[in-house]
Amino acid sequence: MFESAELGHKISKADYDKEVPILRADLLDAQYDMGMARKFPVIILVDGIEGAGKSEVVNLLNAWMDPRHILTHGFDRPSDEQRERPRMWRYWQALPPKGKIAFLFQNWYAAPLDSGLSPKAKASRLEQRLAEINRFERMLAEEGALLLKFWFHLSKDGQKKRLKALEKTALTRWRVPPKAWDQYENYGAFIDTAEQVLRRTSTAHAPWIVIDGSDDRFRALSAGRILLDAIQKRLELAKKDYKPRSASAPLPPVLDNRDVLNALDLTQRLTKKNYAEELETWQGRLNQLSRDKRFRERALVLVFEGVDAAGKGSTIRRLTGALDARQYRVVPVAAPTEEEKVQPYLWRFWRHLPRLGGITFFDRSWYGRVLVERVEGFCLEPEWMRAYSEINDFEDQMTSRGIIVAKFWMHISQEEQLRRFKEREDTRFKRFKITPEDWRNRERWPEYERAVCDMVDRTSTDHAPWTLVEAEDKYFARVKVLKSLCQRLAQAMD
Amino acid sequence: MFESAELGHKISKADYDKEVPILRADLLDAQYDMGMARKFPVIILVDGIEGAGKSEVVNLLNAWMDPRHILTHGFDRPSDEQRERPRMWRYWQALPPKGKIAFLFQNWYAAPLDSGLSPKAKASRLEQRLAEINRFERMLAEEGALLLKFWFHLSKDGQKKRLKALEKTALTRWRVPPKAWDQYENYGAFIDTAEQVLRRTSTAHAPWIVIDGSDDRFRALSAGRILLDAIQKRLELAKKDYKPRSASAPLPPVLDNRDVLNALDLTQRLTKKNYAEELETWQGRLNQLSRDKRFRERALVLVFEGVDAAGKGSTIRRLTGALDARQYRVVPVAAPTEEEKVQPYLWRFWRHLPRLGGITFFDRSWYGRVLVERVEGFCLEPEWMRAYSEINDFEDQMTSRGIIVAKFWMHISQEEQLRRFKEREDTRFKRFKITPEDWRNRERWPEYERAVCDMVDRTSTDHAPWTLVEAEDKYFARVKVLKSLCQRLAQAMD
Repeated sequence: MFESAELGHKISKADYDKEVPILRADLLDAQYDMGMARKFPVIILVDGIEGAGKSEVVNLLNAWMDPRHILTHGFDRPSDEQRERPRMWRYWQALPPKGKIAFLFQNWYAAPLDSGLSPKAKASRLEQRLAEINRFERMLAEEGALLLKFWFHLSKDGQKKRLKALEKTALTRWRVPPKAWDQYENYGAFIDTAEQVLRRTSTAHAPWIVIDGSDDRFRALSAGRILLDAIQKRLELAKKDYKPRSASAPLPPVLDNRDVLNALDLTQRLTKKNYAEELETWQGRLNQLSRDKRFRERALVLVFEGVDAAGKGSTIRRLTGALDARQYRVVPVAAPTEEEKVQPYLWRFWRHLPRLGGITFFDRSWYGRVLVERVEGFCLEPEWMRAYSEINDFEDQMTSRGIIVAKFWMHISQEEQLRRFKEREDTRFKRFKITPEDWRNRERWPEYERAVCDMVDRTSTDHAPWTLVEAEDKYFARVKVLKSLCQRLAQAMD
Repeated sequence: MFESAELGHKISKADYDKEVPILRADLLDAQYDMGMARKFPVIILVDGIEGAGKSEVVNLLNAWMDPRHILTHGFDRPSDEQRERPRMWRYWQALPPKGKIAFLFQNWYAAPLDSGLSPKAKASRLEQRLAEINRFERMLAEEGALLLKFWFHLSKDGQKKRLKALEKTALTRWRVPPKAWDQYENYGAFIDTAEQVLRRTSTAHAPWIVIDGSDDRFRALSAGRILLDAIQKRLELAKKDYKPRSASAPLPPVLDNRDVLNALDLTQRLTKKNYAEELETWQGRLNQLSRDKRFRERALVLVFEGVDAAGKGSTIRRLTGALDARQYRVVPVAAPTEEEKVQPYLWRFWRHLPRLGGITFFDRSWYGRVLVERVEGFCLEPEWMRAYSEINDFEDQMTSRGIIVAKFWMHISQEEQLRRFKEREDTRFKRFKITPEDWRNRERWPEYERAVCDMVDRTSTDHAPWTLVEAEDKYFARVKVLKSLCQRLAQAMD
């Protein structure tokens, strides 16, 4: 894997001085063109052996290009805000928008790479981590990101030589942290893990690029040329209006008329009296659970999806009514903002994840991708097809961090919807709830039904199950949501 | 101050039940209208005596209105990310965008109010804090925010009664933290400070509203009605295209032709050889300073403003070239994004402030308000006139937190600008630097000059001075910036 990076590559000063001005001008041009096109971000991971010149080369590329459009992040120990969120949260926060370049040091590979130095690390754990990373990078690539993963390499002897040279003068001595010599002492173990990591995560959409780090000029020119080449190629693709390539398997055909939605018994009701009693009971229970000591180490994410006018908003109000307003946040999901549009589509949900002890209600959610965007054709079939697994990954990461994920689909019949639409139009303080879009969506009822069934089949998982709610009767629906939420919370905290 | 809130106000259940449905419908309407208009945010501070029902009333208002457009924040102990920024940073992050409502508990009054319970607190310190708060709130109001400050009150006896009542049942016992009884024990001292705080910060644009907290119904109805009334009045103003009212004092007239810009000696130059030497010296020095141990407890914010084509970008590159790319961030300031437009104009700069040990370069900055926005008429005279003091406050808060603020105005002559514009148009990799806007700005040279002189006069302060840079010769300019930055850093860290 590292053979050709240990050959001792070299570039003469003369060649270097001839090449660099041309490369710089080309890089600036490419950077300008990608900034104008705003079609893709460039994410550059910088890893490798200590002493192989990682930060030198990034500093140089910053100097060669326009640093105003480059972000450079080093991920040190996580802050408390970061620790209380899923592992990948801080990387999501650092993703560059389309048109910009980001260099990421000590990125999502830092922990897997270091695991080789820890005797306690389990092989299965590492494999699991790498599989997670592969799914994450695949998502980035499918969302259009240009992902470059640089490994700056040194042989064991080479590392010793470089570290000693750096330690010679005061100007470079700070570049040798104690960690660097530790790594040298354990070079064999470190490189074994590195080989495994690189092998497992060298994928078609994001292969590792191994560069010999022993010669300053060779290292810089290589990285610069590769970067230039990658941006230029992607710009060409962008011009041709590049679209995701993954072919999607066809969905299973509908053979009979039974599906999870028409299996619902929409006649279930609750009298006003029973409702009042049950509401009080379950609101009280929810309040208790939300103040349970064990909840301080957990968090809750609620997803509300449903047919228009099925009562999402009023149900959410019955839940928030039982909670302290400081503890929860309701995120109404509308069209993405400018800042959100230049990021992968899950980005705008990641940013709202609660800290420990917090509760976030999503009134509509990331499932828009496989519902409205699918049905209305706002995204392509390969895009919503891959969304199922991306969403499962997202929810997986939440639950791994202790977040309880509860998802509700609120369902009513077409007739009941019509009745409610009319009522809304007639009632002063409900008028804001009905828009021409609602009437349009109504015409696509069967397509929405199909999309909902697929969604449930593909994303109702053990750790984040869907609860289908018969909402023809509002009282019944609200109590069902409250009750099943309480049960889930109690169960999750046990 | 609290007299009428200790009279034992009461509302009968019958009156309450009659009033509430109407109030709710009106509140929902008002909330809907303000959401549509997107002209102003509503910021509601919730303070008062422990046990006076602060969170109950906010929970109720959340239930009465649409919680999807309400944010509720309680500010607990600051996180480490917050602690490393100026005191007001976390409040800035929590400001609601135009069209939304935010309830803020334990807000910027928490520390001043608690200071009454601490024997070490100094009176002068409190007065200083309150003056800062007044300036901050004035800015919010001038930026169009509707700011409501609720004080929920109880007499000493009333507090005892409420706390005992709350402690009686398991459902409300959690509402009485140990802190509540502490406050009761020190009621006199607490109320003395509260009186002073409320007196000093009851301003025309943001008066305190004191509400008797002893009766649940009276408290809720009062708060609801006041909120409704305030939103409705502001909506009326918004319809009439409400503009900031502050009259601005006229600027001093220009009596002779001497100003800080034409006093600059633009003939200063540096030979290429001297430049190379000086550049190396000062870049080395800057590198050392940035790695100085003492810098880990400080941070650096750099502002670059200047005539178009004066060399801001290339100068920034000479500085970043001496730094580790992980330590700095360059923020190019362009037109505000959607999310930024619905916030006070300083919001988009607050969000980029560095943590301790970090460096942020602003390539153009908050000074746009008093430069391009003033000259091009993008904001009104009262707006840019008040910006001077708002900016001084902003920089004051940075320096109080240990951030070193260095500001550079890069100046060239009109002739030199013309030469550079032409050169840029002719050079392939510089073409992106010249736009039609640059030619337009050029025509307004005298107005820009006046704006720059006013800016320097009004915002060059002891802790955040302007450095005017003679940039006719690029070599001279870059070295001057590097040198004066190093001197400032060294001085600040001593």
